[in-house]
Amino acid sequence: LDYQHVQVPFEITLWIMLASLAKIGFHLYNKLPSVVPESCLLIFVGLIMGGIIYGLNDKSPPVMDSDIFFLYLLPPIVLDAGYFMPSRPFFENIGTILLYAVVGTIWNVFGIGFSLYGICQVKAFRLQDVSLLHNLLFGSLIAAVDPVAVLAVFEEIHVNEKLHILVFGESLLNDAVTVVLYKLFRSFCEMPAIKSVDVFVGVGKFFVVGLGGVLVGLTFGLTAAFTTRFTKDIRVIEPLFVFLYSYLSYLTAEMFHLSGIVAIIACAMGMKRYVEANISLKSHTTVKYFMKMWSSVSDTLIFIFLGVSTIGENHEWNWPYICFTVIFCLVWRALGVLVLTFFVNRFHVNTITSKDQFIIAYGGLRGAICFSLVFLLPDFHRKKLFIAATTVVILFTVFIQGMTIRPLVDLLAVKRERESAPTVGEQIHIRFLDHLLAGIEDISGHWGQYYWKDKLEYFNSKYLQKILLREYDQPKSSIVLLYEKLERKHAIELAEAGQLGHAPSHPSLLNNNRTAITDKKLEDTLNPDVLENIQEILARNLYRIRRTGPAYNRHTLPGEAEPVEHAKEILILRHKSL
Amino acid sequence: LDYQHVQVPFEITLWIMLASLAKIGFHLYNKLPSVVPESCLLIFVGLIMGGIIYGLNDKSPPVMDSDIFFLYLLPPIVLDAGYFMPSRPFFENIGTILLYAVVGTIWNVFGIGFSLYGICQVKAFRLQDVSLLHNLLFGSLIAAVDPVAVLAVFEEIHVNEKLHILVFGESLLNDAVTVVLYKLFRSFCEMPAIKSVDVFVGVGKFFVVGLGGVLVGLTFGLTAAFTTRFTKDIRVIEPLFVFLYSYLSYLTAEMFHLSGIVAIIACAMGMKRYVEANISLKSHTTVKYFMKMWSSVSDTLIFIFLGVSTIGENHEWNWPYICFTVIFCLVWRALGVLVLTFFVNRFHVNTITSKDQFIIAYGGLRGAICFSLVFLLPDFHRKKLFIAATTVVILFTVFIQGMTIRPLVDLLAVKRERESAPTVGEQIHIRFLDHLLAGIEDISGHWGQYYWKDKLEYFNSKYLQKILLREYDQPKSSIVLLYEKLERKHAIELAEAGQLGHAPSHPSLLNNNRTAITDKKLEDTLNPDVLENIQEILARNLYRIRRTGPAYNRHTLPGEAEPVEHAKEILILRHKSL
Repeated sequence: LDYQHVQVPFEITLWIMLASLAKIGFHLYNKLPSVVPESCLLIFVGLIMGGIIYGLNDKSPPVMDSDIFFLYLLPPIVLDAGYFMPSRPFFENIGTILLYAVVGTIWNVFGIGFSLYGICQVKAFRLQDVSLLHNLLFGSLIAAVDPVAVLAVFEEIHVNEKLHILVFGESLLNDAVTVVLYKLFRSFCEMPAIKSVDVFVGVGKFFVVGLGGVLVGLTFGLTAAFTTRFTKDIRVIEPLFVFLYSYLSYLTAEMFHLSGIVAIIACAMGMKRYVEANISLKSHTTVKYFMKMWSSVSDTLIFIFLGVSTIGENHEWNWPYICFTVIFCLVWRALGVLVLTFFVNRFHVNTITSKDQFIIAYGGLRGAICFSLVFLLPDFHRKKLFIAATTVVILFTVFIQGMTIRPLVDLLAVKRERESAPTVGEQIHIRFLDHLLAGIEDISGHWGQYYWKDKLEYFNSKYLQKILLREYDQPKSSIVLLYEKLERKHAIELAEAGQLGHAPSHPSLLNNNRTAITDKKLEDTLNPDVLENIQEILARNLYRIRRTGPAYNRHTLPGEAEPVEHAKEILILRHKSL
Repeated sequence: LDYQHVQVPFEITLWIMLASLAKIGFHLYNKLPSVVPESCLLIFVGLIMGGIIYGLNDKSPPVMDSDIFFLYLLPPIVLDAGYFMPSRPFFENIGTILLYAVVGTIWNVFGIGFSLYGICQVKAFRLQDVSLLHNLLFGSLIAAVDPVAVLAVFEEIHVNEKLHILVFGESLLNDAVTVVLYKLFRSFCEMPAIKSVDVFVGVGKFFVVGLGGVLVGLTFGLTAAFTTRFTKDIRVIEPLFVFLYSYLSYLTAEMFHLSGIVAIIACAMGMKRYVEANISLKSHTTVKYFMKMWSSVSDTLIFIFLGVSTIGENHEWNWPYICFTVIFCLVWRALGVLVLTFFVNRFHVNTITSKDQFIIAYGGLRGAICFSLVFLLPDFHRKKLFIAATTVVILFTVFIQGMTIRPLVDLLAVKRERESAPTVGEQIHIRFLDHLLAGIEDISGHWGQYYWKDKLEYFNSKYLQKILLREYDQPKSSIVLLYEKLERKHAIELAEAGQLGHAPSHPSLLNNNRTAITDKKLEDTLNPDVLENIQEILARNLYRIRRTGPAYNRHTLPGEAEPVEHAKEILILRHKSL
């Protein structure tokens, strides 16, 4: 027997196997996952495993290594989140998300930090030796909402899309703030004296860390898209590039102390549409499947490790400090959401209801990121107290909040996610409205989101697509792609039912067309000629509203206006409106 | 900049990226891969990389770590080979393959070892200090044909299926022999005196190592199949089990000093048909794609590392020894193939032609396995000589033989692989003949391969399928599965061409049916009713020939014979024929 030789891969494989089998086990009994979130069950499995290891060895089980967490377990989850991020609601609410992620997190960090410092002044608690800086450092790691925990719970309760993207987007983007504040306070703790210059440098860092992450991510994302232009003869390694470039973007960002999470999200969102157009259908299935599989396993491992690491003797149970931490986390988050939403609602027509606000505040779950950060703290005499407080906060939010949020959503009758995907008709309407709004913004000289979206679309089709896509002369609109997907799915269904021969033939279709076309049956009843018409209308006309925009303008005849003149006109219009 | 922190994953990712980009680069120019095999190009890239590293650092570049090779790079390639192994030709030629792999390898080891010892006795070469045992040890590592190198070259030249499976099967199965001989001679080298008992123990080990590997592999394979019974609700982690269980089988076998390669092949071949039936179509696409991708990357990395490791100062250039090693490798292999094939041809109707024999002998490429084994040798004063000889043999076989084998195959007009897959009609014929032969063997009391195949099929459908398959009551024959696959492919093609509405409808089909059905167009013109008939004939009747076998028997009426009596009868018949 030569166990030493194969130990490392053998144990890794066994852990992954345990995680996968645990997942199968939960799903065998359908009742359990509908009451208790999977994350709770996994932590529970981890607690039992930890207890067994502790009982057998009589020493603390190994804690989750922060390096393993940040380098190997976190990236797949974030990549999956970024790749499948619904970009429309994300960009529609980007302002609100950034407000929550940046201002909200800073608010929480300082709120929790200062209040805990206040608690430390109470002599009865024997906590006077915990300095303000240490409390702020602790606040910076405990304030951040965790994307892994949020995703695990919110994927199961199916709230409406806007609410979901607000909580989830915040949990992803607050990484930049957390990284900066955590590193800032940690370096302050080690400095003899703090100059006011350092504080200003710290504030400047927010932008560097966040925007730097976006830049690194986009660079790698576009390089990935460019690379997949040349994989036509060697389809089998196509999926690899998606993973390699995203991972490189994460590692590069971490290397330069930028936000890796922001980088990998920017990379995934940047490359997605080009990569999808370049790679084959099977490669794309593999990419999607493997991403889901990988993130699902990482997620499972993280929660099991969280459970395992909880057992042991790493904790200092000063209950007043721990209880007040939990209370302050809840209170400051609730206050923050209330105040920020008040401002958000003043500037938006589509306001955030008070029910939604409650769910946003209540959905602020903490998870493995806090846990890893607290173990990364430099050694000082109260580290074990911070570890204990972090553990309790995580268990409290995941177990109590995670288990009660579903009944609360039912009780409050929070608007749920719509059951079905939007129909083709709806998609055409949405697209049409976008272009209409872009036209309106253009005429009125208002530089709103539709204006910028339109500009970006123009830049994309004029330059980016030509560089990044293999067959750039035939850009297919998403509706045509959707139609093709439906058509393919339908064909497979027909083939599997053995009814390919029975498929409605050409003449019978035309008769049906005259009577009634319901949106849902569009793919069944649309004949290719009609389809081609729609395709042409969509691809040729709808897409170029902005480019043929001057037709809507009061001052020019169609085709006269040059882009420069056009910009001038907008300036003049804008000037007039002011 | 914090490079230390991300170094390990960053460098691994960069190496994989380099490998993938090199692969893309070669395929951009279509002419190059058609002349030079990819493996040569990759070694060349490695040599350049090694040269650059050597030039910059002024010290030998890092050699390929044997642990990394055996634990991480080799398993994906072998898994891929085992999973996609064409089982029919493999089992039809299993006897010949085993003869080549076991007897042939032993022949080569001792032939090369003893002849090199003879060379060492020539005083002019100054090699008298290399003992017989060391020469045999060297022979045991240099004799083994390498699956990675063989696959890389033979995949490109497309010789006929039988020839391919003979060379490739040998290269896979000789692992058991190589492992045993290598470890035996290495332990002999360290022993003060060798007893005759040790030699007998060594011979016994062949069976333990080989059969133990098969046992470990099958155990994990069937467990994997059993596990996928329960993944219906959680499709996304299905592909994981295929990889996890195969890898565990490899590691477990290595842990017990059994043959990991044999184990992973047995695991892959054992689980394949059950796993395919249990998991979803998309999961299966992911499994296939990822396996190909992974093995392709591993393969690329191995050849690049081979090139990199060649550069440096690890070599002792004693040219007589090196040249004679190359010559003996060629001569003993050629002799071995001639002698063994002579015996094989005496017992087979379908003989191996002399052209095929030449290609078998010439296709005995050496590769990364020898290279890793030579670095694993215990330190002794002539290790660098062995490294140099191994390097030259690998480069000679991969470059000279690898590049000339394609022109030679053309020149000799070796029978090539058939261009198209067998048609449905041919498959029905083959299946029918199998059952016919099983019946003939049964009646004549001959226990041949068809008899055993039939027994195994019976055991499979009676017991294994019930345990391992989720829906065991509907076993689909492979022809029905093939039909479904063709049907699905056809439907997708129709959908993509936008002609779903134009698909021939029911009545027109029936007319076509009367005139002429060509095999190739079977999937186009067969209507569902006719298909159902064929399905029923195949699934109900053809499959049970053996079970309703007594109907063909001279001594019983249909349905009378019990399995026990049946076995008795065969014994009686067999006795008579003797």
